[in-house]
Amino acid sequence: MSIAVIYGSTRPNSNTELLTEHAIKGHEVERIHLKDYHIKPIVDQRHDADGFDDVNDDYNGIIERVLKHDVLIFATPIYWYSMSATMKLFIDRWSQTMRDENYPGFREKMGKKRVYVVAVGGDDPKIKALPLIQQFQYICDFFGMTFENYVTAKASQPEEIKHNKEAYVRAEQLLNNIKQPS
Amino acid sequence: MSIAVIYGSTRPNSNTELLTEHAIKGHEVERIHLKDYHIKPIVDQRHDADGFDDVNDDYNGIIERVLKHDVLIFATPIYWYSMSATMKLFIDRWSQTMRDENYPGFREKMGKKRVYVVAVGGDDPKIKALPLIQQFQYICDFFGMTFENYVTAKASQPEEIKHNKEAYVRAEQLLNNIKQPS
Amino acid sequence: MSIAVIYGSTRPNSNTELLTEHAIKGHEVERIHLKDYHIKPIVDQRHDADGFDDVNDDYNGIIERVLKHDVLIFATPIYWYSMSATMKLFIDRWSQTMRDENYPGFREKMGKKRVYVVAVGGDDPKIKALPLIQQFQYICDFFGMTFENYVTAKASQPEEIKHNKEAYVRAEQLLNNIKQPS
Amino acid sequence: MSIAVIYGSTRPNSNTELLTEHAIKGHEVERIHLKDYHIKPIVDQRHDADGFDDVNDDYNGIIERVLKHDVLIFATPIYWYSMSATMKLFIDRWSQTMRDENYPGFREKMGKKRVYVVAVGGDDPKIKALPLIQQFQYICDFFGMTFENYVTAKASQPEEIKHNKEAYVRAEQLLNNIKQPS
Repeated sequence: MSIAVIYGSTRPNSNTELLTEHAIKGHEVERIHLKDYHIKPIVDQRHDADGFDDVNDDYNGIIERVLKHDVLIFATPIYWYSMSATMKLFIDRWSQTMRDENYPGFREKMGKKRVYVVAVGGDDPKIKALPLIQQFQYICDFFGMTFENYVTAKASQPEEIKHNKEAYVRAEQLLNNIKQPS
Repeated sequence: MSIAVIYGSTRPNSNTELLTEHAIKGHEVERIHLKDYHIKPIVDQRHDADGFDDVNDDYNGIIERVLKHDVLIFATPIYWYSMSATMKLFIDRWSQTMRDENYPGFREKMGKKRVYVVAVGGDDPKIKALPLIQQFQYICDFFGMTFENYVTAKASQPEEIKHNKEAYVRAEQLLNNIKQPS
Repeated sequence: MSIAVIYGSTRPNSNTELLTEHAIKGHEVERIHLKDYHIKPIVDQRHDADGFDDVNDDYNGIIERVLKHDVLIFATPIYWYSMSATMKLFIDRWSQTMRDENYPGFREKMGKKRVYVVAVGGDDPKIKALPLIQQFQYICDFFGMTFENYVTAKASQPEEIKHNKEAYVRAEQLLNNIKQPS
Repeated sequence: MSIAVIYGSTRPNSNTELLTEHAIKGHEVERIHLKDYHIKPIVDQRHDADGFDDVNDDYNGIIERVLKHDVLIFATPIYWYSMSATMKLFIDRWSQTMRDENYPGFREKMGKKRVYVVAVGGDDPKIKALPLIQQFQYICDFFGMTFENYVTAKASQPEEIKHNKEAYVRAEQLLNNIKQPS
């Protein structure tokens, strides 16, 4: 059971990161901090005769790392009630990979992943992050991924999450159905 | 009553654009095609001692054009059940403008806007775009904007929207409560 | 193509009824006004050794009428952001019918229905009725029904819906994909 | 800080009840089991010249007990992705109480309540109960109630909830922001 954490945070040591690191304590994971890479917005060329142009950025290297893992934890701050643009840039490009002959079977491979979401924001996320959670469910449905679990939590000031006891307790439950490596 | 259309499409002549242009027929509008500009992802420096660093891109020019208008129409393709990254990049940066002394009263000014949304996608948008609509409502609530109306519509292939009679009829109703300039 | 309208309204000539009647104009339908019948709340006996007790009320007569039709239009006022209790009483009892040997294949039979929803309420239904619509989608998913289309509309005072032009235009589109009997 | 639990369950010792009792352990509460009472569906007479007719059932006695408390915990099984009809019958009648001169200031009094929700169901409630939670938020917004917290949990067979460790841990957090009576 190999785990990747895909971070959509835009500052180091973010509340999202602190909570996620608590959730994964004791697990070996590969961390991917999207903010450290350059990903261009997708240009919809699904219907162009020649398909998508090659894009010169860091995306392919990241998706290759992601594909190696069984479990994907999407950890994102909640910006304007949805995932950060930093994370959305990454996810939008999946539409290109689905048509990229260098990645045959992309949809099927993604469909075998087990997905977790951690989302942290300042404006009543226990209610206002629910649309974001529903969107992740639709993404999982599209691929046939299992959306295993999620935690939403409230925090705004740096390190404020550390005082959110309920969030930490919930984070400890997040990966309950993954067996700890012995 | 001055209208801006903010396009999140990534190809010219998109289904989103065709439907929006039908909705605004007869109105004078300023069109902003976000795909034609470069906007960097926000870096969350809300809590830095010196605040946000200046960002060298096209964002400020766009937000200044947006601020001049009374009515904002957000027209976006539905990518992975939410707005395109192209549009999310733009909206995320509002958090920076709220703390930018060059834009005093940004939140209040935005709060006076009337908002419309056009969202077009291929995977059952009449259900699966509802979280996106709820997110726009939360955005409007934050500023005190009036979320006047929206239309979601199904289309995938180029120009497919032209065969979606229901979408066109709904688009014609979209701006019902704005008086036509005589 | 045989159509039943299941009304959850609690007063005659309700806004919900006016809008629905506009939507179905020219179609032959069977109207079921749930308010005219007595339906008891379900008692969850799914796990009782002897199963559900017989219930002495009007439910079975109604479900038999419903089962005869290909298309079901659920027309409900929006009370407290969901369907009326009058309608919920009816739907909750489906759990009993699924275990009632007098109705073999109930789930499969329901799964062949095509479903439409009309929902009318006073408090911003274009946003606040979206959870209700999502719930109908989940109900349809459970049975494998096709959730064809829906219209939500704003009205509160008696006959107020008659002034809601947008609602009437949308109602006219509701059954677009059902062929008119010639 | 006086607490009422309003149970929408339809069988004794339900999963919903077991989880709620765990959440309130150590608190003094008044329990209202709606299944033990008879409540008629509301008939919408808001616009009748003479207003609502008196209704001969148990509703008024219950609403009077509810009004005495500061904290309301709505504990409902999830039937067809929303609250049980048993609970909906009760809530729908609030529209009548708002116009009942025997209950002056009903809306304002309700607006001072702090609300919690416990919802237990068998079909993926961590996703499919989200519309129900959003509806409770809208109800709270209407009155100005504070929607303090909620827990959704998966269970179907009798007492199955006892094996849902995550649900129990979350239930223990539910009332975190209410001080324990010393």
